[in-house]
Amino acid sequence: MVNECKKLLAEIRAKRPLLHHITNYVVMNDNANIALHIGASPVMAHAYEEIEEMTSLASALVINIGTLDKDWIKSMELAISTANKRGIPVILDPVGAGATQLRTDTALRFLSDYQITVLKGNAGEISVLAGLGGQVKGVDSVSAEAPLEAARTAAEKFGVITAITGKEDIVSDGKNTLIVKNGHQWLSTITGSGCNATTVISAFVAVADNILNAVACGLGAYGVAAEIAAQKAQGPASFKQALFDAVYNLSDTDIEKLLNIENV
Amino acid sequence: MVNECKKLLAEIRAKRPLLHHITNYVVMNDNANIALHIGASPVMAHAYEEIEEMTSLASALVINIGTLDKDWIKSMELAISTANKRGIPVILDPVGAGATQLRTDTALRFLSDYQITVLKGNAGEISVLAGLGGQVKGVDSVSAEAPLEAARTAAEKFGVITAITGKEDIVSDGKNTLIVKNGHQWLSTITGSGCNATTVISAFVAVADNILNAVACGLGAYGVAAEIAAQKAQGPASFKQALFDAVYNLSDTDIEKLLNIENV
Amino acid sequence: MVNECKKLLAEIRAKRPLLHHITNYVVMNDNANIALHIGASPVMAHAYEEIEEMTSLASALVINIGTLDKDWIKSMELAISTANKRGIPVILDPVGAGATQLRTDTALRFLSDYQITVLKGNAGEISVLAGLGGQVKGVDSVSAEAPLEAARTAAEKFGVITAITGKEDIVSDGKNTLIVKNGHQWLSTITGSGCNATTVISAFVAVADNILNAVACGLGAYGVAAEIAAQKAQGPASFKQALFDAVYNLSDTDIEKLLNIENV
Repeated sequence: MVNECKKLLAEIRAKRPLLHHITNYVVMNDNANIALHIGASPVMAHAYEEIEEMTSLASALVINIGTLDKDWIKSMELAISTANKRGIPVILDPVGAGATQLRTDTALRFLSDYQITVLKGNAGEISVLAGLGGQVKGVDSVSAEAPLEAARTAAEKFGVITAITGKEDIVSDGKNTLIVKNGHQWLSTITGSGCNATTVISAFVAVADNILNAVACGLGAYGVAAEIAAQKAQGPASFKQALFDAVYNLSDTDIEKLLNIENV
Repeated sequence: MVNECKKLLAEIRAKRPLLHHITNYVVMNDNANIALHIGASPVMAHAYEEIEEMTSLASALVINIGTLDKDWIKSMELAISTANKRGIPVILDPVGAGATQLRTDTALRFLSDYQITVLKGNAGEISVLAGLGGQVKGVDSVSAEAPLEAARTAAEKFGVITAITGKEDIVSDGKNTLIVKNGHQWLSTITGSGCNATTVISAFVAVADNILNAVACGLGAYGVAAEIAAQKAQGPASFKQALFDAVYNLSDTDIEKLLNIENV
Repeated sequence: MVNECKKLLAEIRAKRPLLHHITNYVVMNDNANIALHIGASPVMAHAYEEIEEMTSLASALVINIGTLDKDWIKSMELAISTANKRGIPVILDPVGAGATQLRTDTALRFLSDYQITVLKGNAGEISVLAGLGGQVKGVDSVSAEAPLEAARTAAEKFGVITAITGKEDIVSDGKNTLIVKNGHQWLSTITGSGCNATTVISAFVAVADNILNAVACGLGAYGVAAEIAAQKAQGPASFKQALFDAVYNLSDTDIEKLLNIENV
C-alpha cells in the first residue's frame, strides 16, 4: 500500500483535481483548506442553476449532509445525477444519519436512487444505514455493536466502498476489508475532522483506479498527518493548525515511516 | 462561586450535553469547536423538517440571529417552541438587535411569545430590547447609557436571566446581579467572541439548576481562558488559537486562581 | 504612495468604517476577522428584509458571489442599488465568473445595471468579464492571455476601478495603472486569500477619495502583511495565523520598508 499511496499523492499534486463540494456550513472553510493543502482544487457551489455545469467540471463530488435542508437536498440530487451521467466519483458523508429521520431518509434515498462511489461516516451512522442498529446523538456516534460488519453490510447492500472512521478506520467493498491504524485522538477534539477526512478521500479517489485502496490511502495520509501534528499540539486549536500544515507538508518519507494499513 | 463553577465544568465534561445551535454562518465553526473544547457536543441544524427531532435530543438550545433570514426565523421559532414543550433551556443571542428592524422585532417576538431562559448580548443590544435606548452599528455596541439598569430591566420585563458582555460582564435575574470581571481586551479583536461566550454559557446552563450562577460561571470560565490565552497572543489570530486551547485545558486550578465574580 | 497608504490605514483605524458584506459561506469568518484586524467593523447580512437598512449604515458594501444562489442574488441587487442611491462604494468580487454561466451572467448584470466602484478578481475572472477569453476552473484562474489588457479593458468597459490579483497585482482605471508587487506565494495555499484582499480593499476604499490609490494601498498593505507572515510559516495554517496577526500589527514602519507599488 505504501507505494500506491505515495503514487496517488503525487498524482493529486500533479493533476490538482477539482473537488466539487456540497458540504455543511460548519466545515466549508476547513474542507476548502484541506483540499488545497493535499494538493487539490476545491469549489463550493450549491445553486441549483449552476450545479450541472459545476459538477461537470469536477474530478470528484463530495456530498456532506451536515447542515442539509430541502433546497440543498434538491441541488445535491442534481449534482449526484450529473456526476453519475459523467462517471465522476461521488463521496457521500451522511453526517447525522440516525439522529433525525430527514438525515437517515436523505442518505438512504441517495444510496438507493443513485450510484454512490464511497460512503464514509462514523460507526453509528453507517450501522444505522446498514440496518444494523447503532445510535447517533447530533453528529456524534454513540454506539454501534459491530462496525466491521456494518462496513461490510453497507458495502454489499448499496454497492459502494464503505469507510468507517473511528479509533481505527475500516474500509470495505464487502469482500475485501482494510484497517487503517493511523490517526490520533486529538482528531476527536476538533469539529469537522471527519468531514476533512472525506475531502482527503475524495482527492485520492479523484485520481485513482482502485477505489478501495484510494480510500484507505486517503484515510492513512490524513491519519499520518494527525500523528505528526500531535507532537506540536498544546490543545485542539494548535493541533488543528499543525494538522493542516502537516497535510500540506506530507512527504513520501512520512508515509514510508508511518503508514499503517492492514488487510483483515 | 468558585466551587459551583468547578462542579458545573466537571459535569459538562462528564455528561457531554448536546447543544443544538441555530447560529450564524460566521461563527458556526468556532461555536462548534468551543462547544467541543469545553466538553459538550455541538450540533448545527436548521432544516424545518428536522428541527423538532433535533431539538428534542438536546440539553440546551442556542438561538443566534447574527445572519437570520425568514426561513431560518421559522426554524428558530419551531426549535424554541419544541424546547419550551420539553423544558430544554433556550439561550438567545440577539446579534445586531437595534441595527435593523428585522433583528429587533425578531428578538422581541421570541422574548414575548416563548420562554427564553437566557438573553445574552452586548450593552447596545440589550438596552434597545429593554426599551432604554442604546445604539448598535452592524453587530457592535456603540452606546448604552446604563448597562446595569438594562440588564435588570430586561430580566424583569422578559422573565429571563440577562447577560451583558463587555469590559465587565453583567448577569442579572432582575433582583440579583453578578459582575464577571474576567476576560481580556483581545476578545474584542476577533469575530464571534461574544457568540462563543454564548455557546459556553449554554454548556453550563445545560447541566445546571441555578441558571443565574451557571451563566456567570460560563462567562467566568471563558474569561479565565481568555486571560490565560492573552499571555501567548502576538496578535488576534494567535490569541484565538491560544483561547481555544485554553478553553479545552481549563483546570480547577485556573478557576481557583483567576475566577473573579462579584455580587452587586 | 507610501504616505497615502499610511494615511488611509490610520483613518480606517480611527473611523472604524462599517463594511457590509454579502459574501460566500467559505470565507465569512475570515472576512470578518480580517475586517476587524485592519481596523474596520464587519457585518454580514443577507436577509432581503433588512438589506436596505443594513447597507445604509455601511461605509462600503462588499459583494462576493463565491456561493451565490437566486435568493442571495436578489439581496445582492437590493444592497447594490441601496448603496448606489446613498453614494456608498461597492466592491464586487466575481468569484468563479467564467466557471459557470450563472456566475458570469450575475457579475455582468451587476456591472451593467448598477454602479460598481471596484471590480476585483483573478486574471481568469476579469478576462472573461472583459470579453477577452480566459479560463476559470471552479474558483481558480487557469489562464488569461493578457491580464494588463484585461484590467484596462474591464475598467473602461464598466466604468470601474479594476483590480487583478496574482503574482503581481494590477490596479487600473483604464488610463492609469498601478502594479502592486507585494504579496507572497503562501497566499495561494489558503482558501479565501483573494476574498480577504477584497475585504481589505473595501476598508481602504471606505475612507478614501482617490479610489485607484486606495485599492492599490489595500492590496499593498495585505501583501506587506503576507511578506511579514511568510517568515513564520511552517505550512499554510501557520502562515494564515501569522498573516491575520500581521494585518492587525501592520505599522507605518512596515509600510515604509516593504510597500512596493509602481506606475506602468
